[in-house]
Amino acid sequence: MEQHRNVGPGRPRRAETGDKIVHAALALIREQGPEAVNVATVAARSGVARTTIYRRFRDRRDLLQAALQPATEAGSPPEGASTREKIAWVLTRTQEVLAGSIGLGGVAAVIADSDPDFSAALRASLQSALAPIHQQIDDDVADRRLAPHVDADIVVNLVLGAYLAEIVRHPTPRPRWLERTADLLAVSLSRDF
Amino acid sequence: MEQHRNVGPGRPRRAETGDKIVHAALALIREQGPEAVNVATVAARSGVARTTIYRRFRDRRDLLQAALQPATEAGSPPEGASTREKIAWVLTRTQEVLAGSIGLGGVAAVIADSDPDFSAALRASLQSALAPIHQQIDDDVADRRLAPHVDADIVVNLVLGAYLAEIVRHPTPRPRWLERTADLLAVSLSRDF
Repeated sequence: MEQHRNVGPGRPRRAETGDKIVHAALALIREQGPEAVNVATVAARSGVARTTIYRRFRDRRDLLQAALQPATEAGSPPEGASTREKIAWVLTRTQEVLAGSIGLGGVAAVIADSDPDFSAALRASLQSALAPIHQQIDDDVADRRLAPHVDADIVVNLVLGAYLAEIVRHPTPRPRWLERTADLLAVSLSRDF
Repeated sequence: MEQHRNVGPGRPRRAETGDKIVHAALALIREQGPEAVNVATVAARSGVARTTIYRRFRDRRDLLQAALQPATEAGSPPEGASTREKIAWVLTRTQEVLAGSIGLGGVAAVIADSDPDFSAALRASLQSALAPIHQQIDDDVADRRLAPHVDADIVVNLVLGAYLAEIVRHPTPRPRWLERTADLLAVSLSRDF
């Protein structure tokens, strides 16, 4: 994608049109919920012309997915981390991504199924973000660092869900919920205890 | 609370005013979300006069909690059930209560924190509904049916959260998500594997 350089006094150097659009869309999702995202609001927020947005994104879902993809990218736990450290890392990233980057209004919209474009876009983004974590769990089972009964896909649910249940049950996550969850899962999923 | 008997041709016999009010409130929560519940809408739906509703419930939160309490009551797994059966039972009840009785719009409202009265009422109802399950887990640890590392409160999060994560990640829960979750947790939380 092209870069704008010094096209006007108020314009940041090297600002990238695509980045401006997705940043504006993500800010709207986080601040006002996914329903607030459409071509008109993103144009107003980003300063990019509607025609440019239409040219770059196939439809609203494509725009939502472009906004969510970088926001959900979780990466992988650091090399050499213990099982407990890996679980704590995924729990921390879950909280950062859902509450910080996307905002809980987006998570709520998926649960209520109030915005099908957004639900589809978030599910697709989560699937690609969780793929390396899923793979790491499979590798750790193969390497006997995790117990043979470990079903990676279900473990991903448990880790993601531990945070969701905590915020459903408590107004803010309790101080040691993350440590307690990592402790329990690390022992439960390891080979011997 | 009083019962109405044959007070009019269209009126059900022995219908109980309190029940009518809470049933109307719960139906509104489930069908239109918690924001749809107020004294006017509950009066219209239940056919009970506003003044009667004001007399019976301290405030909106009190009314919401009265509606949620019976809807969230989970009971306990059947006597003599295995650990795996108990976990499957709690997973099934979680799905029935959240998706069936309350409706996922209510769960979404708590996650988005869009209706503080409702969030407080649902959290209070969940706490009392989950108390016997929490107690059963503690008893099973004491009786050595569950492993000593089991933290009952965190296990409750994992079971509740397993369902929430499943519906965030997939448009409808996948056919075997419940069995796979029960299998993994039963082995993970039992004393030996």
